[in-house]
This record gives sequence, C-alpha cells and structure tokens, in this order.
Amino acid sequence: MPSTGRVKVGIIGSRFEAEIHAESFRILPDEAEVVAVASPTPGNAERFARRFGIPRFFTDYRQMLAEPDIEMVTVAAPNYLHAEMTIAAAAAGKHVVCEKPLCMTLEEADQMLDACRRAGVLLMYAEELYFTPKYVKARQMADEGAFGRVYLVKQSEKHFGPHAEWFWDVDRSGGGVFMDMGCHGIAFCWWFLGRPRIESVYCQMATHVHADKTRGEDDSICILQFKGGATALIEDSWARRGGMEDRIEVYGEGGLTHADLHMGNALPTYSEHGYGYAVEKAPTTKGWTWPVFEELWNYGFPQEMRHFARCVRGKETPQATGEDGRMVQEVLLAGYQSAGTGRKVELPFRPAGVKRPIDLWKPP
Amino acid sequence: MPSTGRVKVGIIGSRFEAEIHAESFRILPDEAEVVAVASPTPGNAERFARRFGIPRFFTDYRQMLAEPDIEMVTVAAPNYLHAEMTIAAAAAGKHVVCEKPLCMTLEEADQMLDACRRAGVLLMYAEELYFTPKYVKARQMADEGAFGRVYLVKQSEKHFGPHAEWFWDVDRSGGGVFMDMGCHGIAFCWWFLGRPRIESVYCQMATHVHADKTRGEDDSICILQFKGGATALIEDSWARRGGMEDRIEVYGEGGLTHADLHMGNALPTYSEHGYGYAVEKAPTTKGWTWPVFEELWNYGFPQEMRHFARCVRGKETPQATGEDGRMVQEVLLAGYQSAGTGRKVELPFRPAGVKRPIDLWKPP
Amino acid sequence: MPSTGRVKVGIIGSRFEAEIHAESFRILPDEAEVVAVASPTPGNAERFARRFGIPRFFTDYRQMLAEPDIEMVTVAAPNYLHAEMTIAAAAAGKHVVCEKPLCMTLEEADQMLDACRRAGVLLMYAEELYFTPKYVKARQMADEGAFGRVYLVKQSEKHFGPHAEWFWDVDRSGGGVFMDMGCHGIAFCWWFLGRPRIESVYCQMATHVHADKTRGEDDSICILQFKGGATALIEDSWARRGGMEDRIEVYGEGGLTHADLHMGNALPTYSEHGYGYAVEKAPTTKGWTWPVFEELWNYGFPQEMRHFARCVRGKETPQATGEDGRMVQEVLLAGYQSAGTGRKVELPFRPAGVKRPIDLWKPP
Amino acid sequence: MPSTGRVKVGIIGSRFEAEIHAESFRILPDEAEVVAVASPTPGNAERFARRFGIPRFFTDYRQMLAEPDIEMVTVAAPNYLHAEMTIAAAAAGKHVVCEKPLCMTLEEADQMLDACRRAGVLLMYAEELYFTPKYVKARQMADEGAFGRVYLVKQSEKHFGPHAEWFWDVDRSGGGVFMDMGCHGIAFCWWFLGRPRIESVYCQMATHVHADKTRGEDDSICILQFKGGATALIEDSWARRGGMEDRIEVYGEGGLTHADLHMGNALPTYSEHGYGYAVEKAPTTKGWTWPVFEELWNYGFPQEMRHFARCVRGKETPQATGEDGRMVQEVLLAGYQSAGTGRKVELPFRPAGVKRPIDLWKPP
Repeated sequence: MPSTGRVKVGIIGSRFEAEIHAESFRILPDEAEVVAVASPTPGNAERFARRFGIPRFFTDYRQMLAEPDIEMVTVAAPNYLHAEMTIAAAAAGKHVVCEKPLCMTLEEADQMLDACRRAGVLLMYAEELYFTPKYVKARQMADEGAFGRVYLVKQSEKHFGPHAEWFWDVDRSGGGVFMDMGCHGIAFCWWFLGRPRIESVYCQMATHVHADKTRGEDDSICILQFKGGATALIEDSWARRGGMEDRIEVYGEGGLTHADLHMGNALPTYSEHGYGYAVEKAPTTKGWTWPVFEELWNYGFPQEMRHFARCVRGKETPQATGEDGRMVQEVLLAGYQSAGTGRKVELPFRPAGVKRPIDLWKPP
Repeated sequence: MPSTGRVKVGIIGSRFEAEIHAESFRILPDEAEVVAVASPTPGNAERFARRFGIPRFFTDYRQMLAEPDIEMVTVAAPNYLHAEMTIAAAAAGKHVVCEKPLCMTLEEADQMLDACRRAGVLLMYAEELYFTPKYVKARQMADEGAFGRVYLVKQSEKHFGPHAEWFWDVDRSGGGVFMDMGCHGIAFCWWFLGRPRIESVYCQMATHVHADKTRGEDDSICILQFKGGATALIEDSWARRGGMEDRIEVYGEGGLTHADLHMGNALPTYSEHGYGYAVEKAPTTKGWTWPVFEELWNYGFPQEMRHFARCVRGKETPQATGEDGRMVQEVLLAGYQSAGTGRKVELPFRPAGVKRPIDLWKPP
Repeated sequence: MPSTGRVKVGIIGSRFEAEIHAESFRILPDEAEVVAVASPTPGNAERFARRFGIPRFFTDYRQMLAEPDIEMVTVAAPNYLHAEMTIAAAAAGKHVVCEKPLCMTLEEADQMLDACRRAGVLLMYAEELYFTPKYVKARQMADEGAFGRVYLVKQSEKHFGPHAEWFWDVDRSGGGVFMDMGCHGIAFCWWFLGRPRIESVYCQMATHVHADKTRGEDDSICILQFKGGATALIEDSWARRGGMEDRIEVYGEGGLTHADLHMGNALPTYSEHGYGYAVEKAPTTKGWTWPVFEELWNYGFPQEMRHFARCVRGKETPQATGEDGRMVQEVLLAGYQSAGTGRKVELPFRPAGVKRPIDLWKPP
Repeated sequence: MPSTGRVKVGIIGSRFEAEIHAESFRILPDEAEVVAVASPTPGNAERFARRFGIPRFFTDYRQMLAEPDIEMVTVAAPNYLHAEMTIAAAAAGKHVVCEKPLCMTLEEADQMLDACRRAGVLLMYAEELYFTPKYVKARQMADEGAFGRVYLVKQSEKHFGPHAEWFWDVDRSGGGVFMDMGCHGIAFCWWFLGRPRIESVYCQMATHVHADKTRGEDDSICILQFKGGATALIEDSWARRGGMEDRIEVYGEGGLTHADLHMGNALPTYSEHGYGYAVEKAPTTKGWTWPVFEELWNYGFPQEMRHFARCVRGKETPQATGEDGRMVQEVLLAGYQSAGTGRKVELPFRPAGVKRPIDLWKPP
C-alpha cells in the first residue's frame, strides 16, 4: 500500500451514518477519497455509489475488504455487527473507523482491540463530539483556565426517535437511547475533563413515549463521578418533540460556559410557505423553525474523518480510539446495571455473560 | 503560467486583512498556496512570511509583481492604494482580489475595471458576506420561497473602532465607518435580493464618540430603495461598546429570518480568570463574554479565497466582481451626498471631481 | 365630586383598547373603578359591561358624560374621534385619558389642550411604553450612567396588521402603521432621552403587503435627530409575520442595552396539540411559539392606568400628557411630509389645511 | 379580630427574606399591611421598621405575638427556628406563613401541623414558585394540554452562595444547597405535575467550592420518580459563578417548554461605567450583565403574600400549605439518605432520631 497521497477509503453501510461519512470526505477532500462502498441490501450500495461518485460497490463487505488498495474502512452498520466487521477488516489489514457505540459487550470490545493490535492497524472510534468546533472551543477555554477547576460537565442529546428502524430492535442495537446517544455524552464528559478515572455510574431510564415500538428506553439520565471530584450529568431522549437538541454546560469554581449546537447556532426563522431543509429530524419547515447552516461541519464530521485519514498517514495521533470506545462500553453496561438496581455502580464493572446491555436493566 | 495545480498567490499587505488572507489559504489549502508577500514597512513582510511559512517577501509590491509564477494577487492595503495596486497587478498579468471598498472614486473604479479587462485578468472583489455560511443559508431559504417576496433586508456591523490607525485618516480611508463597513451592508443587501437596480440612497451620519481621532463618521444609518419595491436598512458603527456585532434581518410577505454572527453563534461564558481569545475586538475575556469558534470559517473567508482560486482555474465563475465593487462605490458616494444634503439621492449618481467620498458630506 | 376614594372611570369604546383599559383597572383595583362604558354599536356596551362587571352602559358617550359621579374618561375610539370626544369630556368636567395617537391634526391637538386647560381637567396621553417595566429599567440604567452619553435609541413594533378594521380606512385612522405604532416609537425615544428638542424627521414608507386593504403604509422607517446630537431609529410594520415584536436598543459611548418584550420574555414552547393563548396576534399555538406571561403587566398598562388615577387624586404628576401627544403629532405630520418629499423635515413643522396626516405622503 | 379590612401582619426576621415580605406587601397593599416586626439582634427590628414604615417593632418575637390585632405572622428566621416560632404563633392564635424549608425534621413538621390544626389557624408554606408568573404560565399550558402527558420536569436554581451566614452552619440550616434551594425544586415539580405520589428519591451531593466555609453540600443533583411514570430532575448549586439562575424545562409526549427567570427575562447590557442594581447576587454591574426588572414581581412574591392574606380572609383557599412543606421535608430527608447510600430511596421515608437532614449524608 502507498504511504503517500490521499487515503483510499471503503465504507460499510449505505444509510444515515454512511452518508455522513461520504459527505464528510467530500467536504474536506484533501486527505482521503472514498473508493468503495458495501451494503447487503440489493441496490443500496450501487445507488449510494452513484450518488457520491464512488467507483466500486459491493453487497458483501468481505468482498470489499479483499480490494488491496483500500487502506481504511469505516463501519456504519447496526451495533451488533460492529465487532464482526471490525475484526474482519483488521484481518484484511485495513485500518478501521468504527461508529459509536463500539459494540455490544466488553468481550467484543476486547476482541476488536486485540484483532487490530495484532494486525497492526489502527482502531479509531467515531466520536465526533471530540471534533465539534463549538465544543472544542469550550474545551480550549477550560484548558486555558477560564473556569478554574471544573466540577460539573453536562451534555444532552434529544430528539423524537432514531434515524433507522433497527434501533428499536434491542437485538440489533443492544439498548435504547442511552446506548444510541448516551455513548456521546459519556465520551464527551470524560474527554472534556482530560480522561480522569470514572469511579461510579448512576442511571435512570424509562420508556415514556415509544413503548409500542421498542423494549428500549427512550429517555435516560446518567450521572458519572470522576476521580478528583468532578461530576457529569448526561441526558438523552428519543421522546423530545420540536427537533434536535445537542448541548453542553460546563461549571468550574471560576466560571462556566454553555453551548447549543442547534438553537444556539440557528437562524430563528418564520415561514408561511416552508423551504428546503431546516435540520436533521426537524418536524417541519413551516411556522417557526431553527434552520442550521453547514450542519456536518458544525458537528465536526469532516474534521473528524480528515483527522482519521491523517492518522493513517502518520501525520496525527488518533484522538478517538478503540480504548475510548471500550471505556464508553463499560460505562454503558454499568448504566444499565444501575438502572436495574437503583444504585450507583462502581467501576471497573465487568458483568459476565451479558448479550445485550439492556438486559442488565430489563432481564430478557 | 500553469493551468493546473494550486494557484500561486501573492499578498500585498501585512496587517489585519493580509493575515486573514494568509490564514484562509492555510485553512483550505487544496486550491491555492501563498508564495509571496509584500509590505513597505521594513521588517513586516519578512515577519509575516516567517509566521505563515511563505517563501518569498518584498518591501516593494512592484517587485513581487515581477515574479513570473505568481498568478493571483490579493490587495490588503489602505483604501487609497487599491486602484494603483490593482492596475499595476493587472499590467503584470496577475489576477486580482481587491479588498473592500474597491477604491476611492468612480473614476478609479472604472480604471481598475478597464485595466483588468484589457489585461485579460479577473478583478475579484473581496466581499466575504457572500460566503458567510449563516447568511448563505438565509439567502438559500429566501431563494426556496421561505419568505415569499422579500420587502426588507437589514444588515449591521458594529464595534468600537477600526483595526488599524489609517482608517481614522480620511485621506487614506476616504471616509469613516460607512466607507469601512457600510460597503458590506450595501453589497450584502443588493446580493441577497438578486442584484435589482438600486433606485435611491438615503444616509445619516454622525461622529458621536471618536471626534478626537477622526473627521470621519463613527455611526451611520443608510436606507436603499430597490427597483421592485424592496428596501434595505444598513447600520454601521465604530461607537458600539461590548464587542463585535454583525447581523442580518430579512422580512418577506410570507416570513422572516434573522442571523447574528457573534452572540448568535457564541458560547455564553463567564470567567473570573480570563482565557486566550474570545473574538475580534472583544474588550476582555473576564466576566461574561461571547467567544466564537472557527471565527474565519464563520465569516466565510477561507471559502471565499478558495472560490477565487477556483475562478482563476476556470472551475467557478466569480461571484463577487469588480462590477459589484463599482456599484457599492456608487452607493457609498451617494450616501455621503445624502448625508450632506438631508435628501434621498437617486441613482445613477456620478459626482465630478470628488477626491474622497466623505467630502460630499463634510466639504474639506 | 369626591376628592378621596377610588376614582370613578368611564370608558368610551368597547373593543381592543377598551378591553385593555377595563382589564388594567381590574388588575390594579386600589385607585380606580370603572363605573360606566359607552359604545355606539348596539349591544356592544352592554356586553362589555357584563363581561367586566361594570354597572352602567351607554350607546351615546355624551349621555355617559352627563353622569355626575364619573371623574375620569378614557377615550378608546378610532383616531378621528379623539378630538371631539376629548373636548366634550372636558366640557363635562371630566379628566381625560386619550389613546394614542392624540388626534389627526395639530389644530385638533391645540383645541384639545385648550379645552382641557380651560375646563381645569387633566389631559393625559395613554403612552404605555413610559410604564413598560422592562423599558423603565433601561431608562433607569441610562439615568444612572450605565451607558454614558446615549447617542442612539431604537424602538420597533411589528406584526401582521392592526387589531381593528377601521385602521385600514385612512379617513378614520389618518394613516397607516406609522400613525398607529410610529407614535409609540416617537414618544418612547423622546422620553428616553429626557425630552430634548427634536430637530429633524426623516421617514420612508411603503405598502408592501396590504395594498388590497388600505391606502396606508404597512411599513415605515423613521429617523429623528435631537438637539445635543442623539438619533432615534424607529421601525414599524404591519407586514411582519410570525407574531408580535416590540423591542428597543440603546447605545451610548459607555455601553448599550436591548430589550425585547416578546421573544425576550417568552417561554420558548413547542406543542403538537396547541393550547389556550400565546400572545396578542400570534398566528397559532401549535409548533414553536412564544407565549408571554402577564401580558398587560409587561406592557405596563395596569401601572399606567393606576398612575392616571393617582394623578386625578393629586398623588402623582402626569408623566404622559397632552403636550407629549401634541409633540408626537407634529413628528407624525413631519414624517409623512418627509416620506412624500424624500427629505429631512426640520421642526417646528406646522402644515396648513391638512385633514389626514397621510395626505402629506400620498396627496388624496 | 376583624373579619374585614386589610389583614394585619407581623414579620419575624429582619434580613433578606423579611425584606422580601415587607416589600411584597408594599407592592400589593390592597389586602394586607405590615404592622409589626420582631428581630432579636438589637437595633435590627427598629431599623427595619423605619425603613418600611412599620409602626411597631420588637426584639422578642413572643412579645409581638402578644399583640392582639395581629392576624398573620410570617416566619423569616433560620431554618432551625421555624418549628418553635410557628408553634408559638399558632398558640397565640395567629395564622402562620412559614418560609422554606418548613423545618428540620419530620417530627417538627408534624408538631407544626398539629399545633396549627388545634389552634384553628392556617399554616401556609412560602413556596413562591407556585406564584412565579412565568412558571404559572408553563403550568397553565400544561393543564391546557399543550405538552400532552408530561414525563419530565426540571428545575434548577444556582448562584455562588447563600444570602446569609447562618446557611453555612448546618446546625442552623440543617444542610447545604439542597436544603436551601432543593426544597424549591421538589415543591415545584410535584406541584407542576398535580401532586402525584412521589415514589423514589435519588440524590448526589458534593462540596466543590465552599468546603472552607461549610460542611454542607454546595452542589446537588436530585431525581424524583412519580406515580404514573413522570420524573423530576432538580439541580441546585452554590458554586455557580456569573449571577443567579432559576429555570425550568418541561417535556411531554406532545411538546415542551422552558423558562428562565434571569437571562430569559433580562436586558442584555454592557456598561463601562456600571449602574445601580442588576439582580440579586450579581457579581458586578460593569461589563456584560443581565439586569432584571420588577424582580420580586417576576418571582411572584407580592402575588404570593397577597394570596396568603386573602386566605386569611377566606377569599381564597391556600395553595401552598404546611402539608406541602411536610412532603418536601420528607423528600429532603430521603435525598440526604440517598446521597449517603448511593441508592434510590423509596417513599414513605421516616428516619428516626435525625436532628439535621445532612446527618443522613455525612454522619456527624
């Protein structure tokens, strides 16, 4: 494989997350190019390839992995497939970018880490909040001492339900909104504070609105305690009307900041007639709406994918790794355990024989 | 000169605007590279070149123009030098990106256009608001019919004074805040509406705060009337405390939107201790502040410079041209005339023998 | 008439403004009580009286004026009736609270002032913005020196059309939105600055949206210049979608403030189902809305009416007088003159033989 | 005692809360008048009486209770005195308005309720959030069905420390910020949802910033679960810089609303020079600040006190009762227990022999 030029990328998946990957590489094209896509649903990969101008497409991702020029694979498939695909990609000698959450169990996480280590490829974890420009600015101010010692970090992500049907099925997702979006908040707060040891996890969950569709929770509140005394408060919901919300609050003995990726960046807009596009998951473009601009950029996706490509070339060191994903996985499991017992769970926590994290809250 | 590869750029200037140019090419490096910088103040060009990793530097911009490989020159010098520099660059066969406002007089504007036309080079006008992501989204919604027929567009830019001393000197600037920032609002509103004919200009000006430093106005209110009935209201100030403001409002029979580049994107922040950087012209980083993130990106500078480079390669058609700059110049002159007479001034307006636009308001 | 106890009030009118008066006296009942209402439309006064528990009602306001115990009359009728009613009330020995604008012409204004002076009754001018709590706080900060010398005051009021049909008929209203709401901005800015002499008035008007209903303007921009150098910028519209807007901005050499009575106080709300009431002139209660709380209180109506009652008892001195209304009337006339000529109009301005202010813009 | 006319009120206390009581009765004077004040610190009661024009003052509150014309007493003393004072007032035949939290223990709460019941006087609980206009509007919308079934209510109150020294001393306060302000959030969320049974309480506490001054917690996060499935999330802090924060969020299957009493109502203001008063606990009036207007009104204090006076006259039924205070007390105790054990505590919860709630978290 070449060690210069743009990194050649293959995408596994053809839906929401795969589109974000392809679009991100298109926005910042200088370090990588997508050369192939794989998706099992007949026609999907081909349509995807045409739409994004990708030369090769496959229905079997293993065939794509056999292409010798591909250097990096992004895994944008349902959660229960992450481990299998990552291990196969590693075996084929490809660097891997795996979507969040990393997998279903700690056993899987360890196998993924091990497979990549042995194959000498990078396992990178697609936590875009590490690259979200507004949140990066908050972290920067914290590092410059703006808030003194930070004692509380909050993150929440809320909307009215996932972007794909498979999330409702806990066999494929492993859990509900805490699994889907809690992983962002866990990673974010931990990263923001400089990755101190997580001492305990408390979590409450409920299925308020979507019990007709899923056994998974559609609302969760999670509290982390860190070595050194800081706390994280993480809220996630699939039951929140009115569009997307993704925001943070940071409190230190010397100050505070908050950031809102949606209402806080948007153009407050009223339209009788409607218009093209407001924002992901917006219910309408009529009446008062909150259209965002440069949506992917403001989440940090193009910057994240460019970073991963540069890591493959050795120009940068991975900032979001499989180890991060594993830590998040442990907290997710502890969160479900806490929701099931009504108690704080202390880390390290390694439950045995758990197939799906949600089983720790609601035994199957 | 090559017709492929990255466009080779020379910058004239080494201060605020020149820094923005250099930084912008660094943020989006795929279409252009800065290979030279020229600045008359001894040491400035060299320091600038070192800081941005630019290989060549000159104290005489005419020497830089003699470099055969330079294809595009950006003019980031005081207003009274724009015409001379642009004409010289055109004579040297370089494409020109000229900062706003285009020049001092309509005579100069015509000479600049003529020189570039005859030399077969592009004269591009550095109006970044055409590329400001948030404002572009507003324009897009308008074009999609969100607001129906738009009847009022407002733009304002306000802070506590210009970024360089030469602005206070009307011999070098041609006028005060209306000259410095009114040009943005004029161009923006005209562009937003699809460049309809401007029928009349009304303007009021005053020097409220900085009369000790300048004969120029530090506050202006300008009203434009367009063919078809729409109105623009443009406010600019060098007398506004508390940091930067750059915002728009759009009103149509079917809706409205508004956008604020500073408070409207910022992270509301409180700090006892202070931190590195909040935003251009922020008075402090202690207490409550409004730090922005990715400042240049959110203005659209990197996107603008990338566009200009692509125009040089023929990949795009200039969206901000010398003709735009000339139209803005006519409105600036009409504005000063209106402020001097207390009347609406109808366009076309071509005053004879005016050296500095401000003379139409305050005869020398 | 008694000089103690609650002031006995009669209301002329039974629509929007009359309701505000009755409701205001109900919210703060300690200084006045409404004892009668008069409205010419059959049934209206009776219905109104029943709704607000008012003991007496009349179809002829002159009959109401004959009631000896009534001490104060509020005039909540169309603009063209203000002078006639005020003069009749004064002749009957009643104190008068006249709604805004004061009347149609300066001749009327002078007759009203004269009639009240001769009858020894107070002529009070119902400009509630002098009592709006949020704006009063802004004024207070200004008086305490927060902003140093104030050089610019802005006020705007915008929505999608008047609350009664008679406003569309310039014979009864005298003009459009500038007459209807511009009077607020003129009074407010003048009052905010401490009533300095107004030197000039500039105005632009247009009928952007409602030309099918009215000859009057539905959008206006007005600029006042004050002795001492301050400027006012006043914007009013009946063409603004999305609900009510009433806001101010204040700029001084030492600082600034802004206040928004609607979005700036509201509870940002999303509802799939809708609810009872959001705010005056809100288009819907579904989707995103901006419900306000204690609407009348936040405008200052109850406080204003209580103040007027206390003036009748000699406990306070009128803060909003017929003289204020006359000054506003002069500016309104100058504004229409300016819109008609495209020039600043200098004050004093006393046009002869004008029936309706709008005739100075659009000759009949 | 008379059964008509203004209710005669005696205030116990002369500090922050007592001032709020006196000022509230002054703002809405039609239903009550303060005729006496008692405070043990020599000179305090007299100064207070002079300042508010109160005719009688006492150093011993028992002497004040002996005044036969006093009908209602407000208790604005440190928490550990609430029970004793309430019981004494009841014995003297006075109606009681007791500040929050009701007392220290459930035993005290029961004695207070019992004493008032036996004396035939009202025990009213001064939870002003039931009367906060903006929050009342939110409740109203909820009751009108705006949000459908509400599943999550959040309330938070945060600033940089209590308004009096005695709060730092857990012998007098019983605990830290959860005791001081958590009681607001507990009462509010319970009331907002229509007082459903509280099933469980979870709480985390920490002393992040003020460990040098107090054993009490300066930051708390509390989660309540209600019969029917709704959840409350309550955050309180004495460690938050930048001024006051008091806000709510309400989420239902059909919508949401949020309200902020400070930034959400304020006039965003920048001042180089400073001014008189911004808001309770504001660190400065220079730089960017968030001055509020009609502060007490916007909390609902005058409305609350007027309501209590009307209850004494039988015109209204108490909306905030001793029973409410007792329920809050039970949740406070359960919260400290939870913080001490790391587990959800189920209600009813009646710990035996607890002197100070905080002892359940940090054994003495």
